Amino acid sequence: MKLNIEEISKIINGKIIGDSEITICRIANIENSKKGDICFISNSKYEKFLYTSNASCIIVNDSLKIDKELDITIITVNDSYLALAKLSNYIKNSVKTKNTHSVNSVIGTTSNISKNTHIGHFSIIGENCIIEENVKIYNNCVIGNNVTIKKNSTIYSLVSIKDDVEIGENNIIHSGAIIGSDGFGFAPSENNLNKIQHLGNVITMKDVEIGSNTTIDKATLGSTIINKGVKLDNQIQIGHNVEIGENTAIAGLTAVAGSTKIGKNCLIGGQCAITGHIKIGDNVRIAGNSGIGGNIKDNQTVQGIYAFNKQDFQRSYIHFKRLPKLAEEFNKLKKDLSK
Amino acid sequence: MKLNIEEISKIINGKIIGDSEITICRIANIENSKKGDICFISNSKYEKFLYTSNASCIIVNDSLKIDKELDITIITVNDSYLALAKLSNYIKNSVKTKNTHSVNSVIGTTSNISKNTHIGHFSIIGENCIIEENVKIYNNCVIGNNVTIKKNSTIYSLVSIKDDVEIGENNIIHSGAIIGSDGFGFAPSENNLNKIQHLGNVITMKDVEIGSNTTIDKATLGSTIINKGVKLDNQIQIGHNVEIGENTAIAGLTAVAGSTKIGKNCLIGGQCAITGHIKIGDNVRIAGNSGIGGNIKDNQTVQGIYAFNKQDFQRSYIHFKRLPKLAEEFNKLKKDLSK
Amino acid sequence: MKLNIEEISKIINGKIIGDSEITICRIANIENSKKGDICFISNSKYEKFLYTSNASCIIVNDSLKIDKELDITIITVNDSYLALAKLSNYIKNSVKTKNTHSVNSVIGTTSNISKNTHIGHFSIIGENCIIEENVKIYNNCVIGNNVTIKKNSTIYSLVSIKDDVEIGENNIIHSGAIIGSDGFGFAPSENNLNKIQHLGNVITMKDVEIGSNTTIDKATLGSTIINKGVKLDNQIQIGHNVEIGENTAIAGLTAVAGSTKIGKNCLIGGQCAITGHIKIGDNVRIAGNSGIGGNIKDNQTVQGIYAFNKQDFQRSYIHFKRLPKLAEEFNKLKKDLSK
Repeated sequence: MKLNIEEISKIINGKIIGDSEITICRIANIENSKKGDICFISNSKYEKFLYTSNASCIIVNDSLKIDKELDITIITVNDSYLALAKLSNYIKNSVKTKNTHSVNSVIGTTSNISKNTHIGHFSIIGENCIIEENVKIYNNCVIGNNVTIKKNSTIYSLVSIKDDVEIGENNIIHSGAIIGSDGFGFAPSENNLNKIQHLGNVITMKDVEIGSNTTIDKATLGSTIINKGVKLDNQIQIGHNVEIGENTAIAGLTAVAGSTKIGKNCLIGGQCAITGHIKIGDNVRIAGNSGIGGNIKDNQTVQGIYAFNKQDFQRSYIHFKRLPKLAEEFNKLKKDLSK
Repeated sequence: MKLNIEEISKIINGKIIGDSEITICRIANIENSKKGDICFISNSKYEKFLYTSNASCIIVNDSLKIDKELDITIITVNDSYLALAKLSNYIKNSVKTKNTHSVNSVIGTTSNISKNTHIGHFSIIGENCIIEENVKIYNNCVIGNNVTIKKNSTIYSLVSIKDDVEIGENNIIHSGAIIGSDGFGFAPSENNLNKIQHLGNVITMKDVEIGSNTTIDKATLGSTIINKGVKLDNQIQIGHNVEIGENTAIAGLTAVAGSTKIGKNCLIGGQCAITGHIKIGDNVRIAGNSGIGGNIKDNQTVQGIYAFNKQDFQRSYIHFKRLPKLAEEFNKLKKDLSK
Repeated sequence: MKLNIEEISKIINGKIIGDSEITICRIANIENSKKGDICFISNSKYEKFLYTSNASCIIVNDSLKIDKELDITIITVNDSYLALAKLSNYIKNSVKTKNTHSVNSVIGTTSNISKNTHIGHFSIIGENCIIEENVKIYNNCVIGNNVTIKKNSTIYSLVSIKDDVEIGENNIIHSGAIIGSDGFGFAPSENNLNKIQHLGNVITMKDVEIGSNTTIDKATLGSTIINKGVKLDNQIQIGHNVEIGENTAIAGLTAVAGSTKIGKNCLIGGQCAITGHIKIGDNVRIAGNSGIGGNIKDNQTVQGIYAFNKQDFQRSYIHFKRLPKLAEEFNKLKKDLSK
């Protein structure tokens, strides 16, 4: 990789302060930077490195106040984290890989595979599938029957996509994800748990990303729906008939039980347990490690094992820590009064 | 799919009210139903749709009171959720798939594979295995040495079953499950964690279902045992030497640490953390997102990060929410008294 | 397996009490032992079996007081759990498997694969990889480009190791693990979450063990680092740019968010949620099912949904259970005083 400062500045829509003639070989973390590197400061924790870094160029927010004269080139931007997104995508996309169909793959004869696609080794595509242009299905994947994968989507190695699933445009599905396996539903009778067969599917809309080893169950009837722009981290479990609203992001190891509806633009932390058959509104924020046992209205921020308002939870938690003291003082008071 | 009402009513042991001559094309969710659909109402939340649905037929519990004259056909049953189990299985089983042995599979020459079995592409079966009749092993599976899989069991794609594991009759193992990998045991010495080699195995009994990406570790010595009728959801972790009793169901992302014994007919919610070397009785219910740190007697229902009686937990939690107010009132009282 | 007592005693550095002429056929759990078995007692819960076991030989700590005359052979050792580690490794290592390169594998022509290695069926190794001697890569694995795997490491079936990852010597990576997939990072703009491309890698040092279905994300820039001797259980999630210190052990289903640094010799329980961008010191112990929201100093033992000192947490929790009673008594007192 070789990029000059002018080129970089154009990509990220920045303003150069200092020498614009230098060449950059690498983007690096500012803690471990050396000559030839370009670095980002997007988190105030790292501002101190501005004065000690050996990098050749640092990209900062234009709101950052720089106290001292600096020896190195600075590029100021409106949002340096967004600039990182832009530059990292530019670099990633500069490496093109060839689309090929491995001779070591098995493709159903009734499936319609666009020519300009990649199918890796030991991957299987069932019957009646539609694989649109520029889809990449890497190695050891198992795609069932009647599956649609829309254009520009990437399916990494060791993914399984079950019968009838529809994957939207420009999706990224990471390794080990299982999309469209059976939901967890059993009708109890006297001595048995009788399996409910799941006859529905999973539908993902445009721009969805699904993390490694995440599982999304198909609907009992109808569809489990992951709307446009949803980002799911690794090892998330999405139950049957769940719907997740546009641009909602969920962090790792969160589980969403069956038939729950989650709104748009939510931010849900990791390790959350969200119960079934509830409705979570738009713009909801759920702190990591929370349990959600009932509906949540729009725009709420919640926390706790049985989550409620985050600030209230934190106030209660401070008093939880002091509980032994409160109890002791109360007992003392009672004793004093009974004298 | 085309089914007439009489046929359906017979399958689910129901009683028809209204026109029994119509034909059904699909089972559907009552919220999104149209002409030709048959729907179920098993949860009272959905009863309101009875009067607005466009479905051709609705299956309801015979206990449901219907207030108005209805235009559509009704089938009444004792338990409509159980009826869904029966009908969905009828539909699922009406689609037969051929049993074949892929030429792209590798099967140990000393293994005994029943003729009437399915072995998918890029699957491997080791040496000294016994694969009984009507077992289906789908694509990209890895079955070790000395493995037994009893009749009528289904192993979905991308499953790994390690050496010496015994899978019972009529099991369903979903994609990405790893059965029989090493337990997590290390003997600390001065500067090292010394690996305990796990020499045991995993045994599953009849009618067990294991969810996608669930992991079950083999025993250090002896067997990790999953008894008859146990249902494990996705992404569950079962430690070495655990035993789970008959017909117990566990929801997603719950972890059970080594050597714990869980009784029969338990219902364990998702995201629970169950410590090692304890005994959980029969008919125990554990709320989702709970932590279990010690033994639990039969028939208990528990909740909490260190779970205890569920009702007591919920009472305590109400007071936890009010803690800042209680503390404030207490401090006010103390101040008033000290005047 | 056939071992005599003298041989066993030498392996585990023990002292024989009783008949040293007998032969052992199996190591077994003491609860289910029979003639010909050798058993261990390392947990005091199991001492009662000493007097009822049918085993031929039992290994105990030399600190154990034996009250009655025993009919069977005893071997005393300093640490019987460590003795189990030694003996189980001896038995495991006595079974040698042949190293072969499957004709059903695909290996990049520019990769440097040591001769004395095993590559299983349907496994893929990309370009520019270095696979050192005595590495075993089992079946259906996907190894990317520019991957190094150092000597004596074992990669079980269905593992994916992404581009640029470096696996240290003597590592064990269990089935379903995904090493080096993208971190979870998005820069929000008006209507989108813009993907941060992850350009870094994952590095594991010597003697690391990684459990089944565990996921480790590569760094945004730089490296996610798993230091010497770290042991990760099943279904753990390690975020981008995390560093885990030497000999730290983490139990199943714990999630560590991006950029967090964990010290040496920590013991972290299962189902923990550890937030991003924090620092956890050396020798820290975190109880299972805890949430870590901020830095933790060296040598702390913590617990709780927002973890703090474990003993303090447990004291607070006792009072949490009694909260309804405390509130009732307080209200009664207030009422009495207002009379």
